[in-house]
Amino acid sequence: MSNDKIHVGITHGDTNGIGYEIILKALEDARMTDLCTITVYGSAKAAGYYRKAMELPSVQFNKVDSAADAREGVVNIVNVVGEDLRIEPGTPSAEAGAAAFAALEAAVTDLRAGDIDVLVTAPIDKYSIQSPSFHFSGHTEYLESSLAEEGDDSKALMVMCAGDMRIALATAHIPLAEVPAAITPELLDDRLRRFDRSLRRDFGIHNPRIAVLSLNPHAGERGLLGKEEEEVIAPAIAAAREKKIMAFGPYAADGFFGSGAYSKFDGILAMYHDQGLTPFKALAMDEGVNFTAGLPYVRTSPDHGTGYDIAAKGVARPDSLRAAIYAAIDIARKRDAYDEAYANPLRRQHTEKERNKDRE
Amino acid sequence: MSNDKIHVGITHGDTNGIGYEIILKALEDARMTDLCTITVYGSAKAAGYYRKAMELPSVQFNKVDSAADAREGVVNIVNVVGEDLRIEPGTPSAEAGAAAFAALEAAVTDLRAGDIDVLVTAPIDKYSIQSPSFHFSGHTEYLESSLAEEGDDSKALMVMCAGDMRIALATAHIPLAEVPAAITPELLDDRLRRFDRSLRRDFGIHNPRIAVLSLNPHAGERGLLGKEEEEVIAPAIAAAREKKIMAFGPYAADGFFGSGAYSKFDGILAMYHDQGLTPFKALAMDEGVNFTAGLPYVRTSPDHGTGYDIAAKGVARPDSLRAAIYAAIDIARKRDAYDEAYANPLRRQHTEKERNKDRE
Repeated sequence: MSNDKIHVGITHGDTNGIGYEIILKALEDARMTDLCTITVYGSAKAAGYYRKAMELPSVQFNKVDSAADAREGVVNIVNVVGEDLRIEPGTPSAEAGAAAFAALEAAVTDLRAGDIDVLVTAPIDKYSIQSPSFHFSGHTEYLESSLAEEGDDSKALMVMCAGDMRIALATAHIPLAEVPAAITPELLDDRLRRFDRSLRRDFGIHNPRIAVLSLNPHAGERGLLGKEEEEVIAPAIAAAREKKIMAFGPYAADGFFGSGAYSKFDGILAMYHDQGLTPFKALAMDEGVNFTAGLPYVRTSPDHGTGYDIAAKGVARPDSLRAAIYAAIDIARKRDAYDEAYANPLRRQHTEKERNKDRE
Repeated sequence: MSNDKIHVGITHGDTNGIGYEIILKALEDARMTDLCTITVYGSAKAAGYYRKAMELPSVQFNKVDSAADAREGVVNIVNVVGEDLRIEPGTPSAEAGAAAFAALEAAVTDLRAGDIDVLVTAPIDKYSIQSPSFHFSGHTEYLESSLAEEGDDSKALMVMCAGDMRIALATAHIPLAEVPAAITPELLDDRLRRFDRSLRRDFGIHNPRIAVLSLNPHAGERGLLGKEEEEVIAPAIAAAREKKIMAFGPYAADGFFGSGAYSKFDGILAMYHDQGLTPFKALAMDEGVNFTAGLPYVRTSPDHGTGYDIAAKGVARPDSLRAAIYAAIDIARKRDAYDEAYANPLRRQHTEKERNKDRE
């Protein structure tokens, strides 16, 4: 991969959301197709519809039967749905959900076959996409189930990135009421190990420092406002330190972001979705990228949703998708460099087991 | 009150934290004593210690036996603890906790007696302050219990303010595991009514628009990630609208702050502590003020804690305390103006019952 251009697969997401608008806007810039080979998993019909509706004619699509036929310097598109797809901007529909799933399924197949190198996903509607074939709470959970290799212990870790801020989630798409019971020593051990490894391998950070947030307000105020800090989180941090993972905390989330302390760490482990994503989005604005660490393939996505309320209004910004494409390329390169560095014969016997999990 | 200067009572908070440093720094500016009459509830010994240690000699204290004897144009101080108080910057201690409580108790007595008009509290350590007389999870809860009038239904509502951003908390100092069960239709009805009234009366906003955040990630994703939005929060918003309270939502917290939607509302009701305070502090930085709405007296505080880690190091910033003093004065004036506007003879009979709850 290191000498060729990286081949980026982009799924179109929910066809009634802002997916095509941000794809068109991001790919308008010809430097994008100079930088990488691009295949969109989508619908030539939907692409044409939004090109016209959004007045974004500059992106020409090259229809291909398979990503393996993709050409450099153009935007390739693989049709994953029939011509009868109805486009209803702003309206959730089972049809748009099915179209989103078809793109995802095709892209995952090609990723496993090596026809694309990295995956960037436009937003899906987590409700519309549900079907007998898709019963996951989001991309991350689906990819964990469909990309992990037979017999390995690959588990997805959701990491939000913007500049030097990287926030991983200990729990993600579960109801808030289920969060406290889900925060166990085993979970935190797993998340800290995967996050540490990802910061080293995917972000090229030598000895990453990880801040761990608390579950309760004021970090539990020494037990007054909750016991999980003393009973679960602090011991998990101590256990990680024993394994040479530089974990610190637990820190009360409000003070941590208010004091700017977040800028002193390479990674931040939040206990639940809104605790990590709310300050992340407040601070990162349009540049946030969602990266799924812990899997044998690189997958990123913009940090926003389908944007039904602004669908086909011309106001959706492609910044986050563009950042997601750059991040996927960057992470793939860093991962290659890391794997190469650890691939010398002397080290090989020690790392072989672990490397076999990964794509070569 | 309208013709006289407002008399601000300031409690010194935990004597081993940054309380005196920020009080000294905020009151260095002589315009502060021009603007209002100031009485610090504290310890002349501790004040002297920090004046010297912090090299902040410009603030001269005028010792008075009671706030009733306070003079204008100087910083008055009432001794609430004995001369034997030990100062140990950065160290939580029962002694410092007791000193914090003594200040609070004295200030509350004077507030009820009308000897001070508004209360500004420096940070306490919620753990050290616990004693048989103080068994609350924070200032807010203590003030709710000690300031509410006999027989009224005054309940504290924690509101964080910075510029035009005002975030109220549906639940505050409770463990995260207790939050979902605490979010009931009755609680939301109560919080929305109090918040609406405070936005009108304390902030002078005519028809306040209130955004309500969701409890679960992605606002529950239509039930996939939690049912509370559909079963409790959305119905509570609809019920509030019936009562002419302009409530909207529920909004997923991450997208709400990420898209800048927060700037379109006069108030934001968060479901729990970290959901509201984390983005608030990330965005408001040093200017945040904590205002306790819903009580018959005005009380504000800085939005940070005791700062043990930076105690007596000279780096604590007084911005938030200064903003808290300004906010207390501003709110007291707005409240007076509002009460006066609704005090004409024709309206009086309708509002009398409500007004009797309040300080005249």
